[in-house]
Order: sequence, then structure tokens, then C-alpha cells
Amino acid sequence: MGSPLETQRLRHERLTKVKGLAVFGADALSSSAYATEEILRVLVLAGVGAVALTVPVSLAIVALMAIVAISYYQTIHAYPSGGGAYIVAHENLGLLPGLVAAAALLVDYILTVAVSISAGVAAITSALPELYPHRVELALGFIALITVANLRGVRESGTIFAIPTYSFILAFGAVITFGVWRWLNGTLPDLTPAEPPAQVQPLTLLLLLRAFASGTAALTGIEAVSNGVQAFYPPEPRNASRVLLLMVALLGSFFFGTGVLAREMGILPREEETVVSQIARAVFEGSWPYYAVQAATMLILVLAANTAFADFPRLASILARDRYLPRQLANLGDRLVFANGILLLGATASLLIVIFRATVHNLIPLYMVGVFVAFTLSQAGMVRHWWTERSGQWRLKLGINGFGALCTAAVGVEVAVIKFLDGAWITVFVIGSFVVLMRAIHRHYEDLKHQLSLERAKLPRPFRAHKVIVPVNNVHRGVLEALRYAKAVSDDVTAVYVEIEPGAREEIERKWERWVPDVPLVVLPSPYRSVVGPILLYLDQVQREAGPDTALTVVLPEFVPRKWWHHLLHNQTALMLKFALLFRQRRLRRYKVLADVPYYLTR
Amino acid sequence: MGSPLETQRLRHERLTKVKGLAVFGADALSSSAYATEEILRVLVLAGVGAVALTVPVSLAIVALMAIVAISYYQTIHAYPSGGGAYIVAHENLGLLPGLVAAAALLVDYILTVAVSISAGVAAITSALPELYPHRVELALGFIALITVANLRGVRESGTIFAIPTYSFILAFGAVITFGVWRWLNGTLPDLTPAEPPAQVQPLTLLLLLRAFASGTAALTGIEAVSNGVQAFYPPEPRNASRVLLLMVALLGSFFFGTGVLAREMGILPREEETVVSQIARAVFEGSWPYYAVQAATMLILVLAANTAFADFPRLASILARDRYLPRQLANLGDRLVFANGILLLGATASLLIVIFRATVHNLIPLYMVGVFVAFTLSQAGMVRHWWTERSGQWRLKLGINGFGALCTAAVGVEVAVIKFLDGAWITVFVIGSFVVLMRAIHRHYEDLKHQLSLERAKLPRPFRAHKVIVPVNNVHRGVLEALRYAKAVSDDVTAVYVEIEPGAREEIERKWERWVPDVPLVVLPSPYRSVVGPILLYLDQVQREAGPDTALTVVLPEFVPRKWWHHLLHNQTALMLKFALLFRQRRLRRYKVLADVPYYLTR
Repeated sequence: MGSPLETQRLRHERLTKVKGLAVFGADALSSSAYATEEILRVLVLAGVGAVALTVPVSLAIVALMAIVAISYYQTIHAYPSGGGAYIVAHENLGLLPGLVAAAALLVDYILTVAVSISAGVAAITSALPELYPHRVELALGFIALITVANLRGVRESGTIFAIPTYSFILAFGAVITFGVWRWLNGTLPDLTPAEPPAQVQPLTLLLLLRAFASGTAALTGIEAVSNGVQAFYPPEPRNASRVLLLMVALLGSFFFGTGVLAREMGILPREEETVVSQIARAVFEGSWPYYAVQAATMLILVLAANTAFADFPRLASILARDRYLPRQLANLGDRLVFANGILLLGATASLLIVIFRATVHNLIPLYMVGVFVAFTLSQAGMVRHWWTERSGQWRLKLGINGFGALCTAAVGVEVAVIKFLDGAWITVFVIGSFVVLMRAIHRHYEDLKHQLSLERAKLPRPFRAHKVIVPVNNVHRGVLEALRYAKAVSDDVTAVYVEIEPGAREEIERKWERWVPDVPLVVLPSPYRSVVGPILLYLDQVQREAGPDTALTVVLPEFVPRKWWHHLLHNQTALMLKFALLFRQRRLRRYKVLADVPYYLTR
Repeated sequence: MGSPLETQRLRHERLTKVKGLAVFGADALSSSAYATEEILRVLVLAGVGAVALTVPVSLAIVALMAIVAISYYQTIHAYPSGGGAYIVAHENLGLLPGLVAAAALLVDYILTVAVSISAGVAAITSALPELYPHRVELALGFIALITVANLRGVRESGTIFAIPTYSFILAFGAVITFGVWRWLNGTLPDLTPAEPPAQVQPLTLLLLLRAFASGTAALTGIEAVSNGVQAFYPPEPRNASRVLLLMVALLGSFFFGTGVLAREMGILPREEETVVSQIARAVFEGSWPYYAVQAATMLILVLAANTAFADFPRLASILARDRYLPRQLANLGDRLVFANGILLLGATASLLIVIFRATVHNLIPLYMVGVFVAFTLSQAGMVRHWWTERSGQWRLKLGINGFGALCTAAVGVEVAVIKFLDGAWITVFVIGSFVVLMRAIHRHYEDLKHQLSLERAKLPRPFRAHKVIVPVNNVHRGVLEALRYAKAVSDDVTAVYVEIEPGAREEIERKWERWVPDVPLVVLPSPYRSVVGPILLYLDQVQREAGPDTALTVVLPEFVPRKWWHHLLHNQTALMLKFALLFRQRRLRRYKVLADVPYYLTR
């Protein structure tokens, strides 16, 4: 992963508005590549006629988008140092809502990777259908690539990130603009299929609600700017909030434009080609700009996934520092990145890709619940924030965030209920389990702190004597080495041998007499062929007789083979004895110390 | 797995001829449940007309069966203590042929389990087609069941085993007899399909050879009796050889009868129902005897798989005792069984079931190569045996075994070539790899013996001094406990602390001064945030300064959490240090001893 980096090289780049849009806009903007398709997939169940409802459904989603954007506009100004859902919910609503928000965000980041990469691969396989059967492998390849890049440490360089984001803005903007122009000129092609799919469901309110729930996929990523206010040039909140508004304006027009063009051309969702690809292909008549659009779409989606690779390890490290996640997640690795968090994200996202066959449509039901839980808790936290602060136009601001919270809560519940059996239950279950787990982890760390604390501690009484026991299975050079060590650290050394095959005792006693007559050898019988059991019993007996003021060391002769696989060829008696001493004997709570004396094999 | 058993309870049952047929006949007899089908599957490619050739192809296979049986008849008399292919080939042909035979047998046993269980499940799903989609799960369930039963220790009880074998002989005998009777009476139904499958290949000699190669599946298991001569009542060779002849007579008539009935009824292979099931269903008009046949077929196939669960661990333990396989495979477990061998067989057979979807037809190409390699090496070994012995009718005997070896070698090469791309290459590759691996394992054990040997060894010079280093990351109760131990075993104790976060040094030094002012504390800088690296460097420096006559112990304070998952919540620094000391430092070859001082957490 490259040579290690010194701690002092840790630094952060400040971003202009132009670069800020590139870095924080990728996740949100890229959702226009798949959100419309999710609406179409539901509406088409009620027949081709129902597809026309895409436009009003999209309009409702754009309205929700505006509400969420205005709410986050306020968050940015209230939390100029960065107001992620975990911080806002934790500070204002308390610990449990904070943990729920954190769990929802972690799940979200994993799904951002899985969904974005799946959609990116779909952009490729739409243009090159022969790759469609290999989409899972392609997706896993992309995740592996991003994981490795992040382990090496990708700087969040606005300059490099600008390329995919602005390519996408240009390309997608061109599709929408040129498409609308052809529509107005009446030259837009009509792709309505000759044999439209049959109506399989009646057009009910429930179906409309399902279409709406699916379409809210367009809202993912809007919160990204509010997490990264500190990354902007001062005045940070002003710059960040302008980027937020610009981003949502672009997102809204892309999303709405896609819906309008899809309806006008009579486009229906297909398994092997995305809706956006169908639109672009038709608008550009399949010429080279079409391929540019697909490439730009793929690039921004990979970048969106990469964003999650920055956010997930960062949030995980904050939670680990607050002792809600294993502390390894807070370790800065050799390359100054949170390597464990990156690996965890890569592995879980890959798992989702495999399970859901790299298909956006399968993943969306899992995605939306987490997004809306985070939205709602964040808004609700802001309501509480204004209520506590009560200064300036707090009533208006509270009203805005309150309205936002109500809307996102309502949509969140709607999504969870309607998509429950499609997969939302998994997310609900995982978020719940995460919260339980985080609390258990925190409790353990607190317990540990108390147990190790030196408050009211006394210095332990010194040992008076030191006894050494050396388990042996033969007399060989490794054993002689172990006995040499044992004699150096204590005057009281005993060897023990467990006799498994009846009659083996004579030979070892003969050898013993010849080589180490000065160390007593105890032979233990073992009718059930266990080595560990008789040794444990013997050790307990020795310790009982010696009393608590005697330190007891078990010296284990241990070969170190030259090749790792040679380990598989040895009975793991030493290992089993160690485990047994550590775990099974904890009731006794006496300090048997294990000393490994290595004997290095040269061949 | 039940309570442990004492070593002295190990004993063996002697078998009568009746019970011997039950125990050693299951594997061979049960192959009549699938061998004919394999022939039909090939011939049908040349159209319905070619199916009639089943009868001559079967006849050729029966002839081969007779040759193999006579060859093994001689083996039984020459090796009354049991003449498995490994022993015969090793003794007569040398090490390498012995290892090849052993590898072929091990592969064979794994495939016996996979094929028998797949065929047993096919017998069930033929009668109950609604279970067909669940055949992989069913097969895995059976393997798990047999594995557990063998781990507990199934005695090779002839009485219990008689039930499946004799049920099968009765049931299958009834199908053949009743079928032939109806044939002679002209009441045998004609199942030739109205729309026969099209001819997709011309009827060539190659196709006939392929049909023959597939049909040789009928020969699997014939060698079983020769492995177990010792299990019979005296005179062992005489009893065993009679059982062998009876078994082959039964097998031959079952197999040939199946071929004749299949041709007369115009039966073609089908995906969801076995050929034998089609025959039995037609002969008994689907009434209850049909279900009895399917049940008996399933039972004998499960028993055949169980036979491999006795043979594989036994052969593996012999190879392990000869130091060609890891010695763990020679360990008698708590229940007096070779538990590791049983688990290994269960796991690999399950893997095959999953990969090949529990389908006999997919597994056969893998199976036959190993079978014929073992046959040929065993016969060739016998040729050498007679050549060396040269007594009695040695010329005749040599001639018989030589002819057998030639026939099986020819068929083996034919099978390997014709089925190479269908899967035989896997077996060829695996057998080759096994041989390479077994030799590497043997070399390692030999090397180890030499390195540990006390021949020309001298007693190592005693240590003159003992230095203790205690790595610490804080001052807490666990550290105090470790220092207490360190002071008990040496007068020369030093603690080391690695400063990762700049500035952390002051606090620990303050605490140190208060609690353990009598132990020197060395603080090591770590600009790259590694804990292990600086400690290793420091240890090397200490050791260089102390010289080779000083024993050096690294005392590691280590918590033992109450619950296993708590381990995941701790930085594994102690573990990493241990690995680094054992592996990375082997160049230095100085004996740094690691002592773990456990600190038991109570919550």
C-alpha cells in the first residue's frame, strides 16, 4: 500500500465553491442516473397508460427535495463546524437518537457504495450489453479498486474530483437540453413498444405511493454538504450553503427533465438497459455523445461511491473514539487513513453486491429507510436546537425544520411500510442491531476502564517464590533449550510428561536420565488420550500446594517452522494448552504465566 | 459427541460371510443404481436406435468386472492381512506408485461419498419429484448426518448394516426377476416416448467408447473386500474371497438385468427421474413395491457413503503414521475415531455436492479415473509380487493379474482421455498435487526429526543473567500485575512505552513516578504510529548489548475478557508483537521468550 507516512503530514485542503460542488455533489447528482427508473418500474405494473404519471410523481419528489434542502441550509448555518446527523441528533436529542442516526448513516454509506457501483456498472452494460452477464464481477472489481485507492490514501482533491462531476453535469445537461429542444421541435423519437407489457395491477393510490417511495432515491446524498462545511474557504457556512442550493437546483432539473423526456418518448424500464441510457441513446441517435454520457455517468457514480469511502471510516472513527465501536476503527494506519473502516466498508458493500446481483432495483428498498431515518433525526435535532436557542428568527427556523422533519418522517414511515417485505425489513433490523451492539460495546469499554482504574488500587504484594513447570512430549533439542531457559529464571523447575500410549514412559525416562538428570520428570497417565486435561489438573494441584505468594510459570518449548504451512503439520498442543489456561481456568483466577521458548527450525 | 471413551475399549468385530457381504458389498452393489443410466445418457446422443447397444456395452463391462474380481481373488489370498492398493503398490512397486495409489484412493473415497449420496437423493426425488429442487440441501443433510454419526463412532456392526444391503438385494432382485418374467410373458410395458429426442451425434466408435467409459461406474467398490480380509472369521482369505465372488455375481446380474430391461421397455434417461426408478415404477405399475425399491436403493447408497467414512480416515491415519499426511490425522479422538479424517471427508464431499449440484452424472467423470488408477496399481503390484515369489502356480497367477492390470490400465487411460474435459482433468490434477504434497510433508517431518535429534547434540551452555522487558501502553492494574511477575523472575526489569500521540509521554511518566518509581521506563518515539516496530528495534538493541549469555524475556500484560467477542474490541498489539517476534525476527535467532501475564476481567 506504499511506504508509511509521518503523522505530521496529516492536513486538509480547503475548497472553493466550484471544487466543493465537485466533492460534495457527486453523491446527490449521481442519483439522477437511477431514481426516475425506479418510479417507472412501479408505474408500469399498472400498464403503459400509468407511466404518464411519472411527471406528477417526480414533481412531488422535487418538492420534497426543496424542503430537505432548505432544512439543511439552516443546519449549515447553525453547525458551521460540520453538522452530520449523528452530531446534531446526539447533541440535541440525546444519546439514543444519536446512535440511531449513526447506525442509519453507517448503513447508508454501505448502501451508497453498493447502489452507486451497481448503477455505474449498469451505465456501462447499457452501452456494452455483452458485459451484462459479468456485472457482479465488474462491480466487485470497482469496489476492490476504490478500496485499494483509499487504503493508499486518496486525498480529497477537488481538482481531480472536478473531472467526473463536471463531465456529468455537462453530459447530463446536454441530454436534457437537447432532448427538450427536440421535444419542442417535435423531432423527439417515439420509443413506445409495439407490444406494450400487460397491466398486472390496478392503478391504485397504493401503487402511486410505492412509485413515490421508490423515486425518493433521488434525495440520497443531499446531506453531504452539511457534513463538510469546514472544508470550504471562509466564510464557510455561506459558501457551503450556496453550493447546497446550486446542487439541489441541478439535481432537481436533471431528475425532473429525465421524467418528462421518459414520458414523451414512451420509454419503459428494461432489464439490460437503464432508462437514462435509453433516453440518451434516442436523443443522440446512438452517436458518440451517447457514449460520452454513459462514461460520465459511470465516472460520477464511482466518485459517489468513493465519497462514502471517506465518510464511513470518518464516522466510524468518531464513534470508536466515543467508545461505541471497536477502537481499531479509530487507528490511523501507516498511510494516515482509517484502514480498518475502509476494509469493513469494502467487504460489506461487496457482500451486498453479491447477494443482490449488482442490481440497483434490488438494493433501493434497503437504501431509502436509512436515508430518511437520518434526515428525520437531523431535522428533529434542529427543531430542538432552535427551541433551546430562541434567538433571532427562531420561530421561522423552527417551523421550517419542523415541517422538514414531519415530511421526511412521513415519507420514511411510508417507505419502511410499503417496502418492508421488499427488503426494508433488513435495514430496520440492521439499524436496530447496530444500536444494541454499540451500546454493548460502550458498556464493555466502561467496565474495562473501571476494572483497570488505579483509583483505590493498592500495589500488589510481591511474590516470594517462583516455580517453573515444563510440559514435554519427548527429549529433543527444543526441550533442552526450554529447560535451559527455565533453569535461568528459577531454581525450582519440574518437567511433566503425559503418557498417552501405554508403555511410552520407559523410553522417555531413559533418555531423561541421560540428558537432564538434574530436572525432576513427572509422568501423568491419560486413559482418555487427552494431553491438556492431565496437565491442567497437575498445574492446579501444584498451585494449590504452593499458595498464592508463589509465581507459577509454564514454559512451553515451541518450534517455529520456516514455512507457514508447516504449522498445519504439527499437533497444536501448545496452542490448546494456552487457550485452556487462559479461558477454562479463569475460575481459579490465579496467575499462571505462559512463557514460549521458541526453537527456530532452519529447514 | 458423547462422553470420551477409554483407549482400551478399542476392539474389532469378526464377521460371518453373510455379514461380510452386508458390510463390504454395499459400495459395489449400490453402483447398479446409477451405472446403466450413465451408458444410456451417452448412447441416446446418437438417437433412440443406438440405445439398444446398452446390452452389448453392459456385457463388455460385466466381462471387465469378472477380470477385476478374479484379480482381487488372488490379492485376497496373497494378502490375508488386508491388501489395499496403497499397501500392495507400496510393498511391490515402491514408494511413488504407493503414494499415487494412496492419492487415488483418497480421491475415490471422497467421490464415493459425493456420488453415493447424490444417487441416494436421486432415488428419493424420483419417487417424490417435489423434492427435486431441494436435492443439494438434502444431500448436504445426509452427509452431515453420516459425519456426526461417525464422529460419535458407529461400530461397523454387521447386524445393523445387514438391513440396507439385504433389503436392496431383495428389492433389486425382485425388480429384475419380475421384470424378466413379464418380459418373457410379453406383458412388459413399452415406455418409448412418442416424440423421441433427436439424434445430435453420429453413432461412432468414439461414442461407444464413451458409453463404455461411463458404464465402468459399475466397477466401483469391488476392491472393498480385499481391504478388509482381517475382519472375517478364519479362514479369513477363504471366507473373504467367497464373499467377493458372490458380490460380483450379484452385481453383474443386477447391472446386466437393468440394461436388458431398459432396452426392452425403451427407457430413456430423464433429468428428474433415474432409469432404475423408471424401470421399477413400470414393472410394479407404481404400486407400493416400487416405493420399497426406492427406499432400499436410498438406504444402500447411504450405507455405501458410510463405508467411505470408515475407509478414508483409516487410510489417512496410516499415511499420517508413515508421515505422509499431517499427524493430526493419526490422532484417535475422544470417541476412539479419527475425528479429523472424518471431518475432512465430510467437508470435501459437501463441497463437491455444492459445486456439482448433487448430480451423479456431473460427478462420474471425476470418479472413474481414481478408481482405475487404484485398480491398475494394485494389479501391477501383484504381478511384481508373483514375480518375486515364484512358487506354486506363480506363472498362472502372474498371468491373471497381468491381464487384469493391462485391462484396467487400458480402460483407465481411455476414461481419462475421453472424459478429460468433462472433469477427469480435475482428478488427474488433484491426484498429482496430493502426491507432491505428501512428499513435501514427509520431507518436512524428516527434516524436523534431524533438527531435533540429540545425536551429536551438546547440552546448551547455561544462561548467566536474565533481563526482563515489559511493554506498557498505560499504567493500570494489569500493568502492575505484570510488573509484579517481572520483579519475581528477574532483578533486571525495564518497561518500555511507545509514544504515538505526541505529548502523551508526560502523563504516563507522571503516573509511573507515582506507582512504580523503582522500575525504569524507556519512552520510544514513533513518528509512523507503529507500536510493534520501535519495540522490536529496542529489543534487538538490548539483546546485542546484553550478549548471548543473557536470557531475555518480554513480559506482556494481557487482559482476558469475560466474553469471547470482547477480544474484538481490543487492539491486538500483544498478538502482533508475538507474531513479529516469532516470525520477523527469526533471522537473529536469539531466544527472546514471551511471557503472557493474564489479567482476568470480571465484567
